[in-house]
Amino acid sequence: MARPTPLSGFPELLPQARLVEQHVLDVLREVFELHGFSSIETRAVEPLSVLLRKGEIDKEVYGVRRLADGADDTGERGSADDLALHFDLTVPFARYVTENAGHLQFPFRRYQVQKVWRGERPQEGRYREFTQADIDVVDRGSLAVHHDADMARVMGEALARLPLPGVTLQVNNRRLVEGFYRGLGLEGDVLTGSIGATMRAVDKLDKVGARGVADLLAQAGLTRAQADGALGLAQVRAGAGDLVGSVRALGVAHELLDQGLEELLAVLTAVDDLPADRVAVVADLSVARGLDYYTGTVYETRMRGWESLGSICSGGRYDALADDGRDVYPGVGISLGVTRAIIPLLGRGAVRASRPTPTAVVVAVADEAHRREADRVAAQLRARGVATEVSPTAARFGKQIRFADRRGVPFVWFPQEDGSHEVKDIRSGEQVAADPESWLPPAEDLRPTVVAGD
Amino acid sequence: MARPTPLSGFPELLPQARLVEQHVLDVLREVFELHGFSSIETRAVEPLSVLLRKGEIDKEVYGVRRLADGADDTGERGSADDLALHFDLTVPFARYVTENAGHLQFPFRRYQVQKVWRGERPQEGRYREFTQADIDVVDRGSLAVHHDADMARVMGEALARLPLPGVTLQVNNRRLVEGFYRGLGLEGDVLTGSIGATMRAVDKLDKVGARGVADLLAQAGLTRAQADGALGLAQVRAGAGDLVGSVRALGVAHELLDQGLEELLAVLTAVDDLPADRVAVVADLSVARGLDYYTGTVYETRMRGWESLGSICSGGRYDALADDGRDVYPGVGISLGVTRAIIPLLGRGAVRASRPTPTAVVVAVADEAHRREADRVAAQLRARGVATEVSPTAARFGKQIRFADRRGVPFVWFPQEDGSHEVKDIRSGEQVAADPESWLPPAEDLRPTVVAGD
Repeated sequence: MARPTPLSGFPELLPQARLVEQHVLDVLREVFELHGFSSIETRAVEPLSVLLRKGEIDKEVYGVRRLADGADDTGERGSADDLALHFDLTVPFARYVTENAGHLQFPFRRYQVQKVWRGERPQEGRYREFTQADIDVVDRGSLAVHHDADMARVMGEALARLPLPGVTLQVNNRRLVEGFYRGLGLEGDVLTGSIGATMRAVDKLDKVGARGVADLLAQAGLTRAQADGALGLAQVRAGAGDLVGSVRALGVAHELLDQGLEELLAVLTAVDDLPADRVAVVADLSVARGLDYYTGTVYETRMRGWESLGSICSGGRYDALADDGRDVYPGVGISLGVTRAIIPLLGRGAVRASRPTPTAVVVAVADEAHRREADRVAAQLRARGVATEVSPTAARFGKQIRFADRRGVPFVWFPQEDGSHEVKDIRSGEQVAADPESWLPPAEDLRPTVVAGD
Repeated sequence: MARPTPLSGFPELLPQARLVEQHVLDVLREVFELHGFSSIETRAVEPLSVLLRKGEIDKEVYGVRRLADGADDTGERGSADDLALHFDLTVPFARYVTENAGHLQFPFRRYQVQKVWRGERPQEGRYREFTQADIDVVDRGSLAVHHDADMARVMGEALARLPLPGVTLQVNNRRLVEGFYRGLGLEGDVLTGSIGATMRAVDKLDKVGARGVADLLAQAGLTRAQADGALGLAQVRAGAGDLVGSVRALGVAHELLDQGLEELLAVLTAVDDLPADRVAVVADLSVARGLDYYTGTVYETRMRGWESLGSICSGGRYDALADDGRDVYPGVGISLGVTRAIIPLLGRGAVRASRPTPTAVVVAVADEAHRREADRVAAQLRARGVATEVSPTAARFGKQIRFADRRGVPFVWFPQEDGSHEVKDIRSGEQVAADPESWLPPAEDLRPTVVAGD
């Protein structure tokens, strides 16, 4: 077999980078569980009929089929019962909720950390296989707006503890935007008519700039005053203190605008205890989110200094995504793109693990006849939580030390002929007597640690 | 949307069952890391050319293709560059090793816990999507046999700590078997000739019994004496003390038999410190393993009282699986079928989590105006590692207590009007004064625990 080559868009990590990813996932799990989220996983595949309900996604979906089925010859591909890999965790979660509603307690809080797949063109921060970490809460019938603030607070708390650059969590509200547009005299809804056209145009603000958006709005038939109003709203950046004033200053009034404004203010107010140097929360009235199932609050998140990656953590309120024909299950959630956030950081050395292996100690083997003795020492150390390997060879000690050094293991243990023991810190060269029943490495060497790079 | 139905073979767990799975994965990770295994993950897809090198697997493989590629119309499916979901973690690991050999330190010890997919007919213990937990060690050039013992010891230690029934870890050695067959005068190798035919026949011993195997051996052209010898070997069950005597008593001699016997004895001897009530290790000379890449030691594992599930933990030595055209990377590993082992146990109540949610405390909310105060109490409790939710509603307290009770949360916290606090154990009804800055639940209530069922 010739050496295989990587598949573009399907990143794989070396062990030292994987330790960073594990650390990130551990922190997320700890924070999510402290806030009472239950873990679930859903199967990797969904029927196409479930995935494609919201349209426009089919370009990005990977179909899945048993090769032995022979169905390739029947021309049946693309039917609604075909399976495909999920492209996010929200749609599968909504399906899981309706399927298991009788066994869940509502409001149901869950976190879900899994791979998802999208057939997008690979580039930095965009992968075809990547890990997402989602939190959502759903209720039956209706879901109080304080949950919208809760999602931002929990994810903000997690982001604050992760070895990432500081972030800006941008919040908007689709009701606010739609109400504002209605107040301008536009018609339709978030998908249709001049409201839908305006939402799609404003969503391109980052890419085409204010003049480009103004052109699109003119094409959509907006008057100059309407276009100016929509662009003015999209340029609002505000905190809890100045949000209402900034929006009112635009001189538009509508009942739906008032409701959205109140909801957005409630979110901003409730998260004012996050550490602003790590997680700044702002109202950013240009945030719209591409997927169309959001109905109220929407979130995006950008890492400071890494804005070109786009949003690493997004989500929102969806009042109508989950519906089993009898009840509706409104939800709100937010999803961290773990792979999208950390692979670029790893690639530029902005975060790293202190060593590539969990091993803290290698026990040296004087000769193969003494391997069992080394095994027993290793078992004694492991019993106190010290990750330990026994040297794979009984080469001369210099070679065994180099073996440990090459893999970044800090300590080598030497059973002595007289039954005593010594341990060497191979960074300093210091070698001291030690008891396998009680010795521990310094706390900072016990496990690999993850640190922001230089 | 009508309520969706589950997909056969793609099991999904409710939160309380998922807690059991998480506990199992946590124990595995801890044991594997204590033994110096690094975590890696590989992409879910491999080119068909990588997966099908070993033949006979294509029936079980799921092909994957971007629906937008339009390739369904070109009739190109089935080409070697097509992607498919991996069906185990050993073949992808071998590919990862050859792809990254320049960045790894050998011998390289890794663990890998991921989903795999096989299009098999679903039944108890057989799924189309399931989680495997693998440990392997590979070296460049050659790999010492003490690693074969190490894999059994590490997985045995993990199995002993898991909330599973006791297991029997059955070890065999393909060199021993092949050497024995050569000593009987058979020809070919593990895949071909009368040796291959005999291996395939003996592998069916469980299904067709000794008489059925004897018929198959006669059809393969073995003499009565050869068939008796092969069946005699397959019926050997021995420990380190009686293995050599049991095999020698069959009166067959061959150099390869001696080598395999020595390797098998070394494995049995090295693992004699496992707790036999939890993990009994025996030589079982009927174990062959279906996949053909094993060359020496092979392992299978059965849970006592659950033998009908088949082997839940299998693996072996593969001297030629990974090869980059310049170097060969022999390896040995063992893989636990996590889903296969735990879903039947969960289904029959043989293991369960103490509650369905991580939450230990629900903080009651007297009215919505006091929600921020409840949020602050929750933050104080979480800072000491107590998983806490704030009541989703400000309903009357009786309803809030029932909310906690329904989801199995043991404590409800009541901020009092005078600024003091009380906490109620809703199982006993006892309510006492408590300080949010110092209160902790009893250790057994802090997190859900996992226990063997009745």
